Amino acid sequence: MDSGLRADTTFGARAERPVGLRTVDLLEYLEECRALVVDEIRRLVPRNPRYGPILYDLMLEYPLRHAKGLRPALCIATCRAFGGGLEPSLRSAATLELYHNAFLIHDDVEDGSELRRGHPTLHRLHGIPIAVNVGDAMLALALQPLLDNTAQVGLGKALRVLQIVARMARASAEGQALELSWAREGRWLVSDADYARMVYRKTSWYTFIAPVLIGGVLAGASPSQLGTLRGFAAALGIAFQIQDDVLNLTADPERYGKELCGDLWEGKHTLVLLHLLRVVEPDARTWIETVLRKARPGTAPPGRATKSTTDIATLRGLIEGHGSVHYARRAARRWTERACRQLGRATATLSASVHRDLLWGLVDFVVDRDH
Amino acid sequence: MDSGLRADTTFGARAERPVGLRTVDLLEYLEECRALVVDEIRRLVPRNPRYGPILYDLMLEYPLRHAKGLRPALCIATCRAFGGGLEPSLRSAATLELYHNAFLIHDDVEDGSELRRGHPTLHRLHGIPIAVNVGDAMLALALQPLLDNTAQVGLGKALRVLQIVARMARASAEGQALELSWAREGRWLVSDADYARMVYRKTSWYTFIAPVLIGGVLAGASPSQLGTLRGFAAALGIAFQIQDDVLNLTADPERYGKELCGDLWEGKHTLVLLHLLRVVEPDARTWIETVLRKARPGTAPPGRATKSTTDIATLRGLIEGHGSVHYARRAARRWTERACRQLGRATATLSASVHRDLLWGLVDFVVDRDH
Repeated sequence: MDSGLRADTTFGARAERPVGLRTVDLLEYLEECRALVVDEIRRLVPRNPRYGPILYDLMLEYPLRHAKGLRPALCIATCRAFGGGLEPSLRSAATLELYHNAFLIHDDVEDGSELRRGHPTLHRLHGIPIAVNVGDAMLALALQPLLDNTAQVGLGKALRVLQIVARMARASAEGQALELSWAREGRWLVSDADYARMVYRKTSWYTFIAPVLIGGVLAGASPSQLGTLRGFAAALGIAFQIQDDVLNLTADPERYGKELCGDLWEGKHTLVLLHLLRVVEPDARTWIETVLRKARPGTAPPGRATKSTTDIATLRGLIEGHGSVHYARRAARRWTERACRQLGRATATLSASVHRDLLWGLVDFVVDRDH
Repeated sequence: MDSGLRADTTFGARAERPVGLRTVDLLEYLEECRALVVDEIRRLVPRNPRYGPILYDLMLEYPLRHAKGLRPALCIATCRAFGGGLEPSLRSAATLELYHNAFLIHDDVEDGSELRRGHPTLHRLHGIPIAVNVGDAMLALALQPLLDNTAQVGLGKALRVLQIVARMARASAEGQALELSWAREGRWLVSDADYARMVYRKTSWYTFIAPVLIGGVLAGASPSQLGTLRGFAAALGIAFQIQDDVLNLTADPERYGKELCGDLWEGKHTLVLLHLLRVVEPDARTWIETVLRKARPGTAPPGRATKSTTDIATLRGLIEGHGSVHYARRAARRWTERACRQLGRATATLSASVHRDLLWGLVDFVVDRDH
């Protein structure tokens, strides 16, 4: 596989808005980053048979399942586009992937999710106690390479990377808390701005902002470059989450890997659903909120009402009838346009490279992807 | 309150085995450390009404409940006994307390525990999703003061403290994994040595080893002093856990704060139970293992057998009849003797001080305490 990831050649200056990598090259770049990071994770996770079967082996469960590899690619491409090397970004990218997968394990517990990347979630396979503990162990293990970083990238950069990771972990928990509090209070009148604030913490920070900031810091990007990179990543993260919300309703089940309509079953605050609730008649809104308050079958304490497949089918019908998917798609487009403006500023002075083009390509990929 | 915590006076050389603080002075010292650390935690936890009710407010729930304050006192006393100051140890002690309480929240979820420090556990009050998320947020928040430490104690010490915390977090998850794997495999033939290895990771590391190592590092203790401090803390932690196992069966319910016999209901691998299983007749052993395999009422999926109060009463009777509590008490004594030998070496060259005497006093306290 040769996606140009290792190439240091630059193409010379290009047009103002680089065209970005073609999808096929982009997927190759993502896949190569992912392969490198999975190798790094295998090196990081101890092989200790004493805890093996329910601790270290399970740490590899999610990372080894098929995934897009967005975070590693963002971290590596940003570092390289700004003139940094592959090696220093690789270790941090692997750390981010460990954090990400630890969050996924805990999120799946918190959301009662059934499927992750085409297979049952970790707590479905091994129970909540083991899943919570594996997530904690991954968070602990992820600290080590960041501390070992000091020898490779120097104390100053290593500490700045740690600061970003600490901020990221807090932001994620804050976003999750916001969503959990809306669910607990049965709050469904949530504005698009509130939604964006929640997603900024819950998704943007750990999928986009932390990877590009860390890549930028390792490459020695300037404070103003880091500022625009952060704006780019925040906007792209929100577009990404909205597209996730859309895909959850419209994806090809063969390629999707998560549970189709799982967000409806779990009663999640998606932009699609928030739009629907704002535009339907009051009677329909009351009915929708009643459905959303019901538990999903199999997770409820005895006596509590549970959602039915008819409930979910009716919800899907209302969503289609009110153009809520279309509305969400347009919102995602607006966020990617904002991301483009910031990326243009952040990369204006950079030489053209496959890495810079990867960042541009990702903007289109995020809203055009089908899984 | 004046426990002498702030005093820098030393008493001059003492006998080879300092007598240790009297219990009343010791409790005052613990209480003062705890109060200082709770203040520090209040400063660390943001007051943000947006996430307040189900995130930051809940972080204070466990720390504000009545507790012994062992970890803060160990960290502060070690730092001061080895010539370090109060301020630098305070921030690290608060971080350790945040970690500790985050682990407690997750452990309570994993063990299905009902009570913590005299009140319902966090997941009983707010559900598993919120409890898991609050624990994660505390782990993230705890990183920040350790990073801010650099200005106060210098980069080198700050990084060594972070290394210890990373090692501690991993050890705790490993200990928990070991216990969960025994439970999952229904493995009850566990030797005292295996028990000690599990407890060394699950309890010693975060309650004893990390606090004294961090205190020692901050005070600039020598590598050989740190080595003996570690040996002291490892042994004392195992004695502490055995006494915990004993108290769970024998404590005064008014003063205990946890659920009496909770370990039996949860089917935990205590030294008491492991002894019983080794010494009973084969028939009784089969019966005990059948009881331990049953779920506790209210937590089991429908159709699974649950433990009854008669089961638990019979188990208690068997434990008394076979002297298993007595056996465990003697084991705890042996571990404290080992702790004393190591502490003697670690503190041999130190001037006498209330802080040094606190460490000696703790050795007796750990096995003499009644809650």
